[in-house]
Amino acid sequence: MTQPEDETPDAAATDGEGWREEDWGLDPALVAACAEGAEAGDREAVLASVGDLHAADLADLLEQLDHATRAEAVRLIGPDLDPEVLSELEDDVRDDVLAAMDPAHLAAAVGELDPGDVAYVVEDLDPEAQGRVLEGLEPVDRTAVQQALTYPEYSAGRLMRRDFVTAPPFWTVGDMIDRMRAWEDLPDQFHDVVLVDPAMKPVALVPLSRIMGSPRARSLEALKRDRMEVLEAEEPQADVAYAFNQYHMASAPVVDAAGRLVGVVLMEDAMEALDEEADEDLKRLAGVGDESLSDKVAEIARRRFPWLAVNLCTAVLASMVIGQFEDAIGKIVALAVLMPIVASMGGNAATQTLAVAVRAIATRDLTPANMWRIIARETLVGFANGIVFAILVSAVAVVWFGDPWLGAVLAAAMVINLLAAGLAGILIPIALDRAGADPALASGTFVTTVTDVVGFFAFLGLAATVLL
Amino acid sequence: MTQPEDETPDAAATDGEGWREEDWGLDPALVAACAEGAEAGDREAVLASVGDLHAADLADLLEQLDHATRAEAVRLIGPDLDPEVLSELEDDVRDDVLAAMDPAHLAAAVGELDPGDVAYVVEDLDPEAQGRVLEGLEPVDRTAVQQALTYPEYSAGRLMRRDFVTAPPFWTVGDMIDRMRAWEDLPDQFHDVVLVDPAMKPVALVPLSRIMGSPRARSLEALKRDRMEVLEAEEPQADVAYAFNQYHMASAPVVDAAGRLVGVVLMEDAMEALDEEADEDLKRLAGVGDESLSDKVAEIARRRFPWLAVNLCTAVLASMVIGQFEDAIGKIVALAVLMPIVASMGGNAATQTLAVAVRAIATRDLTPANMWRIIARETLVGFANGIVFAILVSAVAVVWFGDPWLGAVLAAAMVINLLAAGLAGILIPIALDRAGADPALASGTFVTTVTDVVGFFAFLGLAATVLL
Repeated sequence: MTQPEDETPDAAATDGEGWREEDWGLDPALVAACAEGAEAGDREAVLASVGDLHAADLADLLEQLDHATRAEAVRLIGPDLDPEVLSELEDDVRDDVLAAMDPAHLAAAVGELDPGDVAYVVEDLDPEAQGRVLEGLEPVDRTAVQQALTYPEYSAGRLMRRDFVTAPPFWTVGDMIDRMRAWEDLPDQFHDVVLVDPAMKPVALVPLSRIMGSPRARSLEALKRDRMEVLEAEEPQADVAYAFNQYHMASAPVVDAAGRLVGVVLMEDAMEALDEEADEDLKRLAGVGDESLSDKVAEIARRRFPWLAVNLCTAVLASMVIGQFEDAIGKIVALAVLMPIVASMGGNAATQTLAVAVRAIATRDLTPANMWRIIARETLVGFANGIVFAILVSAVAVVWFGDPWLGAVLAAAMVINLLAAGLAGILIPIALDRAGADPALASGTFVTTVTDVVGFFAFLGLAATVLL
Repeated sequence: MTQPEDETPDAAATDGEGWREEDWGLDPALVAACAEGAEAGDREAVLASVGDLHAADLADLLEQLDHATRAEAVRLIGPDLDPEVLSELEDDVRDDVLAAMDPAHLAAAVGELDPGDVAYVVEDLDPEAQGRVLEGLEPVDRTAVQQALTYPEYSAGRLMRRDFVTAPPFWTVGDMIDRMRAWEDLPDQFHDVVLVDPAMKPVALVPLSRIMGSPRARSLEALKRDRMEVLEAEEPQADVAYAFNQYHMASAPVVDAAGRLVGVVLMEDAMEALDEEADEDLKRLAGVGDESLSDKVAEIARRRFPWLAVNLCTAVLASMVIGQFEDAIGKIVALAVLMPIVASMGGNAATQTLAVAVRAIATRDLTPANMWRIIARETLVGFANGIVFAILVSAVAVVWFGDPWLGAVLAAAMVINLLAAGLAGILIPIALDRAGADPALASGTFVTTVTDVVGFFAFLGLAATVLL
């Protein structure tokens, strides 16, 4: 991700953004300057260090400060804090920042945000603090925030923007342009005009680029996009992100249960959702929950505990399998030396299959139509690599312990375990998906349990039968 | 990702897309209908099944067919194949499709694509086949494709579009609208007008929404966005995707080494890049290379081989550690039974830390400014969970084998290994990043080698010292 860009040494100079590192990371010197300023209580120094930053970068900077320095920096920035920073912060850092802000500044800042962003900012606050923030809003905004909070977290209803531009299909380009010029609060960011019928049902999307390139007399209807994907307000954001990425859409209308237009999701917001979902998949596969770098030690240890506990149970299960063969190990200690190889290779092969399967389910490439073919393929891949590694590993065993039968047993166990790895790696995520669970929850833990148990059982069981 | 949406049973009905499954996946019945039609050589049936599909969905459908059926389906669809399908297909399926297409249809199809997409389609072809495809293009398009091929794969230069709209800053809204209306080949998809100086250096971006909402006499300069991020043509797409996601940009100008505008990256394309990079990170962490569901068995087995081979070496290393303690195991077989628990817990804890670290580096949240704090934090988390699981696991050992000293040794090894897990999980990706490599390459394999070796050595070494 961060290849050094030797070929473009003047990247920072060319784009006129001196503070930016070549790979777009935040300049550490800026973080240091802000921290120093905050610790010295020097408001001017803090403002100088953060003054020019985009809200997203300032949020990153605040995340990189430690708890006390962060609170002090926020206090010093005071009313100059860009409200957008609040919607860019990670959850627990945001709590810090909200607590450090002067209530009057907080109310003013929240008043400048889009109701969807306010909902995101306040939803984890305790009801009393939430009430205090919402009280400071204009009644119409407060209603919008409360409305947004009725949609499930991570849904289209939360992602959508409430300021959008609609028109009846019979309007002309001229009508539309005149209307927009007269519009006092025209949204600053939108890519399409939503054509709606009299019941506010979305009928089509018209891209701004086509409106701009057409004569005033042309009807909007004639300029509409070929396709429009309509989202339900309750639709999970993972599906919204998938649809935007699949169809390269710039925007999509969101409707309520009655089919009436209630908002528009923009690609900018769908991209953020896509990033969040990718983050979640990767962390779930590794057995970490929703965790960010800025969490506190006790909090992190607590969040990682459940999967480690599950892993302890499955590890004990594998140990119990070994325990069944104590006699064999007591007689041939080489078994204890070699058995982790079988388990480790199985675990690795299973993780490979699992990662491919989880991604394929997320991108809707693994479906009932090709499922059996893919399962057969993974089985064959497991078998093929099983044969290859059986030969390699039995050679190691023969050279090391000089016992061809030990090598043969190891080889057989390797083939069996890589077959099991392929099957577990594909069947477990498919089964989870069928059951309505997130296939990424399969995680290394479950799948490697299978390969540990099968690996130890196959190797020690064969050894007890053949070698004793 | 695919929660059942019981609360919106009429999703498909509401948006008028009967073929679509509720979670936006392709209807398996459609895949089956197409396969059946292709096998029967029935062109009408194939066309009926694919007629209405978006190019991205048709590409998915073709990916789900098996090799022979796919070729037959492509042959039957013939000139009706939407050229965009070619740029949506996965690499090896695309090779199949290109081979199955009539050369005349192929030339016509390629002629309709954007030069960037053509470059993507032809770059993996052998030079002769590539030459044949390029020959069919108009000279100006051929030059554009050859130009695109000079940029590195996965760079801004490949991602960008070459049809964009520019204007001098002194133009008014009226000038711009008149120019666009007179423009014969106005690009269909763009979100911003790029203001350029006389040397074609990008100066600012003006969103279409602001142009549309402003009176004709307003100067474009007055409507420009606060920020513009300029991309180098050689910039890796991972950085491009990061910048779009961080700054919620709709488009970004791309410049050559001299700073002249050569293209514009749109958010639609940056989103695809973000998805590709997330895919790559997840698969690299699991020790799989660039692999898709549609690859063939031999190809997949071959691609997964290298990481399994690395894992074999590291597993043998761990076995050699165990081999040092054959005497101890021969005397106390319980050591062989319990030792995988220490290794497995370490491996899991390390994978958790690794996933968080790799994501944090990718999102530029782990930086020199907070690195030491994060390393200290991971060490503490490892220590904290080490203590908790030491108590749990020693209780298991005492109950199982009735030997408190064995329990104590197991507990000490657990603390040591979870500490090592935290350190390896954070230090290895940081070191890879510092060395200019992709931290995701750390993968389970390397990190779990550390925890296997440390785990076995700590447990067996302590046991040999204390218990014998």
